[in-house]
Amino acid sequence: MTELAGVRPEHFLWSVTDRIGTVRLNRPDRKNPLTFASYAELRDHFRALAYATDVDVIVFASNGGNFCSGGDVHDIIGPLIGLPMKDLLAFTRMTGDLVKAMIGCGKPIISAVDGVAVGAGAIIAMASDLRLATPAAKCAFLFTRVGLAGCDMGACAMLPRIIGQGRAAELLYTGRVMRADEGERWGFWNALHAPEALEDEAMALARRLAEGPVFAHGITKTQLNQEWNMGLEQAIEAEAQAQAICMQTRDFDRAYRAFVAKETPVFRGD
Amino acid sequence: MTELAGVRPEHFLWSVTDRIGTVRLNRPDRKNPLTFASYAELRDHFRALAYATDVDVIVFASNGGNFCSGGDVHDIIGPLIGLPMKDLLAFTRMTGDLVKAMIGCGKPIISAVDGVAVGAGAIIAMASDLRLATPAAKCAFLFTRVGLAGCDMGACAMLPRIIGQGRAAELLYTGRVMRADEGERWGFWNALHAPEALEDEAMALARRLAEGPVFAHGITKTQLNQEWNMGLEQAIEAEAQAQAICMQTRDFDRAYRAFVAKETPVFRGD
Amino acid sequence: MTELAGVRPEHFLWSVTDRIGTVRLNRPDRKNPLTFASYAELRDHFRALAYATDVDVIVFASNGGNFCSGGDVHDIIGPLIGLPMKDLLAFTRMTGDLVKAMIGCGKPIISAVDGVAVGAGAIIAMASDLRLATPAAKCAFLFTRVGLAGCDMGACAMLPRIIGQGRAAELLYTGRVMRADEGERWGFWNALHAPEALEDEAMALARRLAEGPVFAHGITKTQLNQEWNMGLEQAIEAEAQAQAICMQTRDFDRAYRAFVAKETPVFRGD
Repeated sequence: MTELAGVRPEHFLWSVTDRIGTVRLNRPDRKNPLTFASYAELRDHFRALAYATDVDVIVFASNGGNFCSGGDVHDIIGPLIGLPMKDLLAFTRMTGDLVKAMIGCGKPIISAVDGVAVGAGAIIAMASDLRLATPAAKCAFLFTRVGLAGCDMGACAMLPRIIGQGRAAELLYTGRVMRADEGERWGFWNALHAPEALEDEAMALARRLAEGPVFAHGITKTQLNQEWNMGLEQAIEAEAQAQAICMQTRDFDRAYRAFVAKETPVFRGD
Repeated sequence: MTELAGVRPEHFLWSVTDRIGTVRLNRPDRKNPLTFASYAELRDHFRALAYATDVDVIVFASNGGNFCSGGDVHDIIGPLIGLPMKDLLAFTRMTGDLVKAMIGCGKPIISAVDGVAVGAGAIIAMASDLRLATPAAKCAFLFTRVGLAGCDMGACAMLPRIIGQGRAAELLYTGRVMRADEGERWGFWNALHAPEALEDEAMALARRLAEGPVFAHGITKTQLNQEWNMGLEQAIEAEAQAQAICMQTRDFDRAYRAFVAKETPVFRGD
Repeated sequence: MTELAGVRPEHFLWSVTDRIGTVRLNRPDRKNPLTFASYAELRDHFRALAYATDVDVIVFASNGGNFCSGGDVHDIIGPLIGLPMKDLLAFTRMTGDLVKAMIGCGKPIISAVDGVAVGAGAIIAMASDLRLATPAAKCAFLFTRVGLAGCDMGACAMLPRIIGQGRAAELLYTGRVMRADEGERWGFWNALHAPEALEDEAMALARRLAEGPVFAHGITKTQLNQEWNMGLEQAIEAEAQAQAICMQTRDFDRAYRAFVAKETPVFRGD
């Protein structure tokens, strides 16, 4: 177990307020591209979040009007050209490990997307639990436009479950921009907010979750991912076990006592 | 094999007309909460429906302007507080067994939701095959608001497949109400109808199914659930087998003869 | 490896232009029904497409204002009546094999649906990667109306992933027509176009894909189907491997060089 409030990452911004951790890439002049180093540090950071005792919800925020422009062409794509398979696989596994770490951190992640979220930036939004955006936000799974396949960091598995198989196929084959209104209509964005309101809304949503039964939220996150490819009967049994665990938490007891006393429950996450 | 028309359940209303069975909770003054006893009796009733010879389609109807307010706080949540794990798991398994029985009964279930469908009430709607509601219907997977996780009775597996992973995550993490217009837009409700028309519409839809090839409908239901986590190739082979079975029914023959005679086929479910 | 440009199928029309193959059923006076012979020839044709060296994208087009009216009542349904199980299963497996061949051909398939796409016609659209239609197009999974189950050629597995479990259940149980505007709203149709523009739009989309990194498109198609029922972690590892393969293609190199030279990349599919 560890506290992350005091951590100062080298390649992105990080702060903790009211048990909500905020991640923000920090090269706004270039729309916040990723580099080998920021990928690796983000992966390690989300892995550490699984054990963090002082963070219950994470907001992945924009910076300077943009979310993330994906893997940098000069810093990432250039060096990859001509590498032997061993090194290419090491790279694609590292990027996949970031998604695995986001899924595995056990805490809800809210992406707040202003401007562009393209390539790996679109993936980070996709791999979050909840997604907010501005009406002008542009999201593109543009791998195909750099000669690659749409299957990057889990996109062929996750995107169809969020927006449907046909719409996902279109985005992944063409690499075209998904406009914000399309994304909201298709269920990719949970809501759209004006740029000046985006971060407040994301924080309000994060606070709502952080004031909830956060241990139980972690179980919700675990089950949403764990049941991905279970049979229906197995999923129902898995939920019976998972919910029985939650019924032994003090938060369940607190909710009941508050209800009887006609008060609002104060959850503490244990 | 058994006839259910004459059955008089203790904890809910039940009637059979034209091979359509109607279930209705019966504590309208309290918006039809569930109790340990009604959970168990519903589970047993849906298990019996698998063998019923006089029912082909089930309508789960509202009563007194509401569908179901979920597990009663006093009758269910109170007694659960402080129970040993063995008893908690016995309870969550019983609730999951209701969903398994609804899935396993082999007959289409249509929920007709007026007013509130919250907690286990939302689950009953979710576990139905088709869902109708009124424009003012309120549906909430509010487990998180009583300190529990969203993974209740299969919700983390089923809700994402109905409305998409992102929208399901929002409802399950926040416990917020899904408005009827959202639910229709997202594919949760198949259609919205005015309160005074709701039950007629549900019965008309039920009649349409009951007049169809009901043996084949049972195979459709089986395959929709059975193929939940099959690979694509396996699913296609499974359907080849399942449809070949249906091609040996008399209903298939009846449809062909009616077509040749330019008549409407009269199906009999064998 | 084989060239298909010169092939003249007996039971449907086939042409190749700019590495785009166009399939078109050819009984427009009867809205293009399928027969035993055309099923089998289509299956073999899509199997051959997996090895075709002169085709990168396939358009499944309409003819005479209609796409496909499904299995012909006189040519298919009549002869099936009363067949022994062995022969029925041989037939349903052949139809399923068409879908398997479409999935397995490794090249994006775009359906362009004018008029009716019903029964097996609806399935062909469903089994395509991308789907365009006209505003008056009518799509119906009408198996239930001929006494059969909705589980035909993979529909209970694929349709729910495209339009959601609840909407799929409604279409499969009732056999009702999905109107074009519903289909667009639900994610079945990627876009609607006027009848006179439909084929041009389909060809423009096909050209866009054919001018992209077609080897990588094949990997996208493979992964979209391959990850259907993988766990999330397995899917992410599978994509790490699949994308590493694409990073050794010349198209990836071409994209990078073009970017550096501020040119548009010219992909060649290797």
